[in-house]
Amino acid sequence: MSAAGTNGPLFRRLALVGIGLIGSSVARIARERGDIAAEVVVTARTPKTLDRVRQLGFADRIEADPRAAVEGADAVMLCAPVGAFADIAATIAPHLAPGAIVTDVGSTKQSVIRDVAPLLPGGVHFVPAHPLAGTEYSGPDAGFTTLFENRWTLLTPLPDTPPEAVEAVSELWRRCGSMVECMDPAHHDRVLAIVSHLPHLIAFTICGTADDLSDESRQEVLKFAASGFRDFTRIAASDPVMWRDIFLNNREALLEMLARFTEDAQAMGRAVRWGDAAYIEDKVERGRKIRRSLIELKQA
Amino acid sequence: MSAAGTNGPLFRRLALVGIGLIGSSVARIARERGDIAAEVVVTARTPKTLDRVRQLGFADRIEADPRAAVEGADAVMLCAPVGAFADIAATIAPHLAPGAIVTDVGSTKQSVIRDVAPLLPGGVHFVPAHPLAGTEYSGPDAGFTTLFENRWTLLTPLPDTPPEAVEAVSELWRRCGSMVECMDPAHHDRVLAIVSHLPHLIAFTICGTADDLSDESRQEVLKFAASGFRDFTRIAASDPVMWRDIFLNNREALLEMLARFTEDAQAMGRAVRWGDAAYIEDKVERGRKIRRSLIELKQA
Repeated sequence: MSAAGTNGPLFRRLALVGIGLIGSSVARIARERGDIAAEVVVTARTPKTLDRVRQLGFADRIEADPRAAVEGADAVMLCAPVGAFADIAATIAPHLAPGAIVTDVGSTKQSVIRDVAPLLPGGVHFVPAHPLAGTEYSGPDAGFTTLFENRWTLLTPLPDTPPEAVEAVSELWRRCGSMVECMDPAHHDRVLAIVSHLPHLIAFTICGTADDLSDESRQEVLKFAASGFRDFTRIAASDPVMWRDIFLNNREALLEMLARFTEDAQAMGRAVRWGDAAYIEDKVERGRKIRRSLIELKQA
Repeated sequence: MSAAGTNGPLFRRLALVGIGLIGSSVARIARERGDIAAEVVVTARTPKTLDRVRQLGFADRIEADPRAAVEGADAVMLCAPVGAFADIAATIAPHLAPGAIVTDVGSTKQSVIRDVAPLLPGGVHFVPAHPLAGTEYSGPDAGFTTLFENRWTLLTPLPDTPPEAVEAVSELWRRCGSMVECMDPAHHDRVLAIVSHLPHLIAFTICGTADDLSDESRQEVLKFAASGFRDFTRIAASDPVMWRDIFLNNREALLEMLARFTEDAQAMGRAVRWGDAAYIEDKVERGRKIRRSLIELKQA
C-alpha cells in the first residue's frame, strides 16, 4: 500500500491503461491538481492515440508497452473497454509492483472481477470502480477536468481488498470531484442495467429502426427529429466498442431489464390498441413522478 | 378569408381555444410583434387556467365560453389536447364567422381531420397544423416567445382548403419564427410516430419499468440516474392527458412503429444473449451515423 497521505500526492506513479474520455479526464485533473500522483504514465493500444496524447500534453510519460507503463507504478487504472480487460490483466500482471493498487473505470463490475481478479499476483490490491460520468464523446480529446463533479463513483471491493486500498481509490475519486459509494458488484450491475445499459440499448435500437424506414421517411426523420428522437440520438452517439463490451459483459442483468421493459412496452401497445385511456394516463403520470423525484434529488 | 396583408396584422381577431405551452407561446408572440392579430381572445376549460391567463396578461380578452371566444374571429386555433377536438368543434361550429380560418396545433393530423372537418360549416376553412416544438413543461406559464424559432411547422391542408387560407396560417407560423412545410396527413402521422410518439411511449414505459423494481433498487435508480435514464425522464415529464390523446389518436402508425422497434430490440437482446459482437457493434455504429447526420442537418 502506498497512499502518500494528505500532504503530498496520493500516489507516486499512476499508470493509465487506455486513455479515452474517462482516462484523459483523470490525467487532466491529476496534472491540474498535482496532489493525485507525482507522475502520470499513459499507455494505449494504438500509436495514433499515443501521438495524440503527446500533442495534448497531459501525460508525464507515454509508453507504447503496457508492461513498461505499469512497472514501478503504485496505482494502475484500467480505462479501456471492459472486453479488453482480461488480455490487459494477463499482459501486465507479471510486471505489477508488490503492493500496487489496480483499479478500473468499467461500467460492468462482475465481469471485471471475473476477468481481472484471478490474474493479479498476491500482494497486489484490486479495487473495482465505476465513475458514473460521461458524455457522448470519446477518445483522449474528449476529457475535461469537471467531468466528475457532483457525480457518483461506485466502488465494488472484493471481500479481501484491504480497506486502505479502498480508501486510497476513494480519495482519488473525491479529489476528482466525485462522490463515492461502495456497493455489491451484482447489485451494481443490476442498477446500471436499468439506469444506463438498457437506455443505451433502446437508443441504439430506435436509431436502427428509423434507419430501416424507406428512404423518404428516413430523410424526414432526420429533418424533423427535434421532438424526442433527437434526445435518443444523443445517447446513441457513444463509442461502439465500449458499448458492445458493456452489453456482452452485463448480459444477465441487461436481458432481465430488457425483458421487463419489453413486457411493459407491449402492455402499453395493448392499451393503445384497445383504447385503455386510464392505463396510458397512469403510466404517463408515473413518468412525471419519477422526473419530479429526480429534480428533488438534484439528479435531473 | 380575411388575411389582412403585409402592412397590418394578419388577422383581426385570433381566438385560442386551450392555452398551454403552445397556445400561450403564440399569444405571447402575437402580443410582442403586433402583426399577427389585432386582438387575441383566449378561452380554456377551467376557471383556474383562465385566472392564470388573466394574471399573465398576454390575452386581449378572456372568455369562459368557447362560443363567445370564436364569435367574430377570423382565425380560430385549437390548442387543447387532440382528444378534446371533436367536442370543441361541435360546440364552436355554429358560432364560427363566415370565411373564418380554423387551424390547430395537434400532434396527430388524420384524427384531427376526422374529428373536426365534418363539423365545420361551409365557407369556414380548415388548415390542420402542427408546430414541432415543445418542452417538458405544460400550461399557460410554460410558453415563451422563442419556442418556435428554427423549428418546423407542418401543415396538412385538405384537398379543398383554399390556398389563401394555407398561406395565412403559413405566414402566422413564419411570424412566430417557424419554418413551414406542407405534408400529407397520413405521412405526417407516420413520421411523427417514429420521431416523437414512439420515443415518448418508450420514455414513459421505462420510467414505469424502473418504478416497478424493488424499493431498494428504485431508490438507487433515482440516485444514480445520471447516465442515460435521466435523459429519458426528461422526455417523460410531459403532460399526461396530451400524450394519452396523442397515443390514442395515432394508433395505427404508433403500433406499427412500436412493433418494428420491439422486433429490433428483441434482435439486439438475442445478439447480447448469444454474444454476437459484430451485430451489436454494427447497430451502435448506425446510431452514431444518425447522430452525425443530425449534426450535419443542424437538428442536433
